[in-house]
Amino acid sequence: MGVVIPLEDSKNKQASVKPLVDLTKADMERVNQLILSKAGSDVQMIPEVANHLISSGGKRLRPMLTLASASMFGFTGDAHVKLATSVEFMHTATLLHDDVVDESDLRRGKSTARMIWGNQASVLVGDFLLGQAFRMMVDVGSLEALDVLSTAASVIAEGEVLQLSVAKNMETTEDDYLSVIRAKTAALFAAAAEVGPIVAKTDKASRNALKSYGMNLGLAFQLVDDVLDYGGKAADLGKNVGDDFREGKITLPVILSYRRGTADERSFWREAIEGGKSDDQNLEKALGLITRYGGLSDTIARAQHYGTIARDALAPLPQSPWKAALLEVIDFCIERVS
Amino acid sequence: MGVVIPLEDSKNKQASVKPLVDLTKADMERVNQLILSKAGSDVQMIPEVANHLISSGGKRLRPMLTLASASMFGFTGDAHVKLATSVEFMHTATLLHDDVVDESDLRRGKSTARMIWGNQASVLVGDFLLGQAFRMMVDVGSLEALDVLSTAASVIAEGEVLQLSVAKNMETTEDDYLSVIRAKTAALFAAAAEVGPIVAKTDKASRNALKSYGMNLGLAFQLVDDVLDYGGKAADLGKNVGDDFREGKITLPVILSYRRGTADERSFWREAIEGGKSDDQNLEKALGLITRYGGLSDTIARAQHYGTIARDALAPLPQSPWKAALLEVIDFCIERVS
Repeated sequence: MGVVIPLEDSKNKQASVKPLVDLTKADMERVNQLILSKAGSDVQMIPEVANHLISSGGKRLRPMLTLASASMFGFTGDAHVKLATSVEFMHTATLLHDDVVDESDLRRGKSTARMIWGNQASVLVGDFLLGQAFRMMVDVGSLEALDVLSTAASVIAEGEVLQLSVAKNMETTEDDYLSVIRAKTAALFAAAAEVGPIVAKTDKASRNALKSYGMNLGLAFQLVDDVLDYGGKAADLGKNVGDDFREGKITLPVILSYRRGTADERSFWREAIEGGKSDDQNLEKALGLITRYGGLSDTIARAQHYGTIARDALAPLPQSPWKAALLEVIDFCIERVS
Repeated sequence: MGVVIPLEDSKNKQASVKPLVDLTKADMERVNQLILSKAGSDVQMIPEVANHLISSGGKRLRPMLTLASASMFGFTGDAHVKLATSVEFMHTATLLHDDVVDESDLRRGKSTARMIWGNQASVLVGDFLLGQAFRMMVDVGSLEALDVLSTAASVIAEGEVLQLSVAKNMETTEDDYLSVIRAKTAALFAAAAEVGPIVAKTDKASRNALKSYGMNLGLAFQLVDDVLDYGGKAADLGKNVGDDFREGKITLPVILSYRRGTADERSFWREAIEGGKSDDQNLEKALGLITRYGGLSDTIARAQHYGTIARDALAPLPQSPWKAALLEVIDFCIERVS
């Protein structure tokens, strides 16, 4: 079920996150220390649940964005480390709540926290991490950064509810879908990248450049994620292929295949997604239709579109290893799928 | 199953929340407007879920505390209205998540949001309201108020997880129980009362007085709530009698009755609470034991103890209608049980 797409526009055949990892290495060690310390509690279940997810091998792309977007303007200090940790906690809290909402049993190849400790602990430890995230932001003391991140928290939750509203509705348009992923995923990427220039006290144009970079990178990232759900291998991804299909989640590969299909095929989609007939046989059929109508390759083309916007957003900034690393991350996010 | 306890220390036989309601009436109208506006969203499900709970007739004691604790120092403006709304949103978010965690079907006599819209919407709309609460706090711009309220958010979640850890464990001590209610209930009362003096820019002593008042009022409030769960009428309370018993929640009436009971009676409690044998017949037996060992009257005595501390906390403040109203609320909270 692997998908190979020729990346014709890519100048970088083997794009990697490594330059960004290397540049942020020292600060990420401080972030990791702070994560351990702020996920600590005398209430034993809190670090247990939090560390289960925290140690499960996520890439920590979002906190690296915050670190890089402050450091590229010469910022040194600890505000960016605290904000990067806040961003990661906001993300972790969202994952804990998402697993409850989606009734997922697997994330990144491991049992979800809710399967081990129950829905109750997942909801409440998520709330705790969100509270700790806000305390760290307050500790930094920048009302501008607080404004950006608290707005992101509202927007993310709003996006998740919107996703719930459009779930199992085959009439969802590409625009509806974009509204969902802009809110539930891209808003945090944008906020993570915007708070760097804020603490670095740089000019408004640079702040907007990083915000736009983060937003469009986030859109590309989520589009590719939604392709991977139909095209990757569960072991590689640490999740089950076809999870979105089984949950009746409407993502772009499905929207495109539905709209481009025949009346009979549209009936199939409605029965599968709205009617819940999502067994393995129907998943096979869905994958066939998605392939026939270019649902994956055209979703990747959309991702490349947003990737290009992210690249252009950074164009006016002076060349630097930081900028080069951030640009390479765009290709890395899109090439994950090949 | 009604419980009538002589309130020998009470100087005020018919204590009421009315003086506080009257004094805060104009500002509470602004709070109610702000609640409606900030619970709004283009995503229709959000105001539906939020308003279901918001309009369900809670007393809105917490936001009134914030308004009173600012107004009593002569504060006028809108910061206290925004913070009062934030406090109510934090409380509403907690209730939405609590109902999921406790699997409750009834709150204040109405079906819980999770019974109507599902656990998913309850978790996510709770997250949205928490995000909106933080945005309003940021809008006020007081880092001190942000510090107090974000710390409360962490502490509340920590207390909820602690409650989960001690659930169904009959060896829970009164001290463990106090740690739980201090965190899950009293911390928000304390924060609600402390942010008033903060925005009013009053002296540190007054700020500490209100904080201590809120904390101890919150303890008394929760102790009485836990008595009501065993002693009130479902219709009056808007919840089911014996909910805590059926959920295996360890509250002070149970702790006292367990510790004061015979070995046989302790076996009964373990089977009922830890073993889940909590049918109506066992609830009847539990109520009998609680009555025999003074579990309710002594829990009320504890509430009176904290009520006295709350009263003394305000003692150094000059007489005013505000102070009188806040003092009367202490008696009102405790007399709910009689």
